Amino acid sequence: MAENGKITPQSQDFPAWYQDVVREAELAEAAKVVKGCMVIKPHGYAIWEKIQSDLDRRFKETGHQNAYFPLLIPMSFINKEAEHVEGFAPEIAVVTHAGGKALLEGEQYCIRPTSETIIGHFFSKWISSYRDLPLLINQWANVMRWEMHTRMFLRTTEFLWQEGHTAHATHEDAKDEVIRMLNVYGDFAREMMAMPVVRGIKTDAEKFAGALQTMCIEAMMRDGKALQAGTSHDLGQNFGKAFDVRFQTEQGREEFVWQTSWGVSTRLIGGLIMTHSDDTGLILPPRMAPVQVVIVPITRKDAEREKVLPVVDGLFRDLKARGIAVKVDDREGKRPGDKYYEWERKGVPLRVEVGMRDVDSGTAMTRLRIAEEKQKIAIDTLAAQIPGILDDFQQMLLARAEKFRDDNTVTVDTWDDFLGVFQDGQSKFAWCHWDGTRETEMRIKEETSVTIRCIPLPGQGPAPEPGRCIRTGNPSAGRVLMARAY
Amino acid sequence: MAENGKITPQSQDFPAWYQDVVREAELAEAAKVVKGCMVIKPHGYAIWEKIQSDLDRRFKETGHQNAYFPLLIPMSFINKEAEHVEGFAPEIAVVTHAGGKALLEGEQYCIRPTSETIIGHFFSKWISSYRDLPLLINQWANVMRWEMHTRMFLRTTEFLWQEGHTAHATHEDAKDEVIRMLNVYGDFAREMMAMPVVRGIKTDAEKFAGALQTMCIEAMMRDGKALQAGTSHDLGQNFGKAFDVRFQTEQGREEFVWQTSWGVSTRLIGGLIMTHSDDTGLILPPRMAPVQVVIVPITRKDAEREKVLPVVDGLFRDLKARGIAVKVDDREGKRPGDKYYEWERKGVPLRVEVGMRDVDSGTAMTRLRIAEEKQKIAIDTLAAQIPGILDDFQQMLLARAEKFRDDNTVTVDTWDDFLGVFQDGQSKFAWCHWDGTRETEMRIKEETSVTIRCIPLPGQGPAPEPGRCIRTGNPSAGRVLMARAY
Repeated sequence: MAENGKITPQSQDFPAWYQDVVREAELAEAAKVVKGCMVIKPHGYAIWEKIQSDLDRRFKETGHQNAYFPLLIPMSFINKEAEHVEGFAPEIAVVTHAGGKALLEGEQYCIRPTSETIIGHFFSKWISSYRDLPLLINQWANVMRWEMHTRMFLRTTEFLWQEGHTAHATHEDAKDEVIRMLNVYGDFAREMMAMPVVRGIKTDAEKFAGALQTMCIEAMMRDGKALQAGTSHDLGQNFGKAFDVRFQTEQGREEFVWQTSWGVSTRLIGGLIMTHSDDTGLILPPRMAPVQVVIVPITRKDAEREKVLPVVDGLFRDLKARGIAVKVDDREGKRPGDKYYEWERKGVPLRVEVGMRDVDSGTAMTRLRIAEEKQKIAIDTLAAQIPGILDDFQQMLLARAEKFRDDNTVTVDTWDDFLGVFQDGQSKFAWCHWDGTRETEMRIKEETSVTIRCIPLPGQGPAPEPGRCIRTGNPSAGRVLMARAY
Repeated sequence: MAENGKITPQSQDFPAWYQDVVREAELAEAAKVVKGCMVIKPHGYAIWEKIQSDLDRRFKETGHQNAYFPLLIPMSFINKEAEHVEGFAPEIAVVTHAGGKALLEGEQYCIRPTSETIIGHFFSKWISSYRDLPLLINQWANVMRWEMHTRMFLRTTEFLWQEGHTAHATHEDAKDEVIRMLNVYGDFAREMMAMPVVRGIKTDAEKFAGALQTMCIEAMMRDGKALQAGTSHDLGQNFGKAFDVRFQTEQGREEFVWQTSWGVSTRLIGGLIMTHSDDTGLILPPRMAPVQVVIVPITRKDAEREKVLPVVDGLFRDLKARGIAVKVDDREGKRPGDKYYEWERKGVPLRVEVGMRDVDSGTAMTRLRIAEEKQKIAIDTLAAQIPGILDDFQQMLLARAEKFRDDNTVTVDTWDDFLGVFQDGQSKFAWCHWDGTRETEMRIKEETSVTIRCIPLPGQGPAPEPGRCIRTGNPSAGRVLMARAY
């Protein structure tokens, strides 16, 4: 990690670069006094608000309603689903004292690591007939998992997320929901974050504790590693049985409901940073940028201010009226170059500079966050052009991320090639045959720390054709995506 | 509390009426398995979202930025401000085990009851110069206070709220912020919730633990009791000193910052319910209604559906295009009367009924949630009229709430009259002289359970003129607002 004001080059030390970008863009800082937690600073939180508002709209358009369930979960609930408790028990924070008294053992609570259990409990009270189904609920909340190795946004003890929880009359309906919400995540990542993702299925070893099947979106970071950016789980009847969530079918039979859950978290901000940013700092796609355009007036004398500021103000109003998130940086006592650098580090997509000469010539200098050089644009038409400029930049970032991913995706057929791709802690996306056993998966993971990110959904990877497992040589039905991961 | 489907009359048992309305409108339910907590159900949460989005806009317009601080606060922090720890220690929930291990005593955390302490800690890292001030931060979060006597929305162990935290270079600036945010709350309550409030200052006995002064908005519920609906605190330099939040002034001196904090919570939903609702159920002002208009098609035969539904659909689209939150209730197997009743209980401001006869005559029947009778309106002009109808209804509810409050506000000059006003657990708003001592305040509270709600700000109560304390006869500088309270 470099000193304040400096950013370690990506190529030199990627994790240090990441920490530096987070600090210099003022996105977050480690809480330190609270183990593994972070403070999300205003610029970081504003990105989270962008994520929230767009996803929330997509959830509502697909028929979901928001609700809020208790932060605390009775310890006995966590223990009700066997795989679930095994997965989460080691990460739980426990409340043993409250209101000045020690709680009895049976009265203790854990802070929710996820809410399948407590929501299952309420679903059992709310659902009695097929008429109550599907029940489509989402919650925006904080959750807590006591982590040993934390990294801002990517893995923190407390994080913010949304968790969807739905109940259905048939397994088919539940499975449709799982894929529907996976696609909501995938579309959001692509359209809003300019982050291409592979949509696939987790292996049994990597699925959610308590699920029949977990689907995921996997994105490539600029160091070639994979980030699991969102998951959607087919819970089958596991939680329905654990929490006795039964309903009467149209034919009058009693059955357990079929449930799903799905979530994305503040981790997405980490993904956004590592998909686009460079050695200067953060790069934000316009649709995720709390400030899309910054206007810097360049004035040395009061007489210049009097001529320049009205022009800047007119531009500001015009852009605002067009729905552009625009900021004027007219702080005094700070040089233009320092301002440029600050907004570049913060990832603002477009900068507009307006000085005396510009006003005289009726033009302004503009610079996209990634651009060879500045562009001179007539002030009269600038505001009208900017929405298009931002759209093009958004598309450029997506294309750039796709190209980077494609350039770093390989098809690997031999164990030697595999070891070559992943040597010295490096990573790419590697499409490899795997024999489908947990044993082989674990062996590869132990030997190389490379994991199976997912079994691709149709169209998300090479067309399935049989082959030989890269590690054992045993038969394989198709290639899976392998990479080092966050 | 009445059985499911029934609502106890307000006049018979107000607390039972309240519980029944909360249940029948499907706003929330007691969690039971988590002490003192509730589940906020979709209809209740949608109201909270309305509150959030409007307040958030007002906070941003006044220059505030959102951020997020850790849920857990080191126990040692809570103890740093003497009055603060005294106020909150008895209500704290403590995390003593995490990640499978017992935490050492010095490593234990409490779940935030409010965040002055931890935010003070970070402010001390973020602020060094007068240039960093004012620092204007808001957080949307859950907090926890272990309560013995809970009531849904009004007082629960966990609740959702926003907490503003600001730091200023001078006490004047901080005091301006306190009153600015109090007015944001007061304006919001009046304009959006149609809930008139008295703006005033808390007595020292009732102020926030750790503040120099607490300002509040107080609203009258339909049982004559007061609800403290929002508070704004002048924290002086108390937390600045406790957390060493210093800055260098323009003149180069080192000084402690002046801080404020201010908050409203899901308690506002309780206030909304008890300001407007009646024995049929919830009544929502249109600006707070997740569903503003429900359209119920009335069809007995398929042939009728074919003629009625397209008309309903046209109306739905037209209203939606006008930004109205509209719902069509075309559920089959449910009688129109049952639908009417359900949406009335849920507080939908306007119902539109469209049947065959209506389609034939080109009209629709409409009914406001409070109305003597239905209105027949031409379908052609209905959508265009509805925004105005809803605005009028919003204003009518405000006028009605104001009239109710004024009708139940009295000026009291003798102790006998005072006892008469508050006999048998009843309450009104009573403007009374008080001698300004904590001793008298406590004596009145102990004898009658009536409290001083606030010392009114200018224009919020009777013009200040000297008098004699209602209890002791000692001199008083002006009247204060007294009432029983939630």
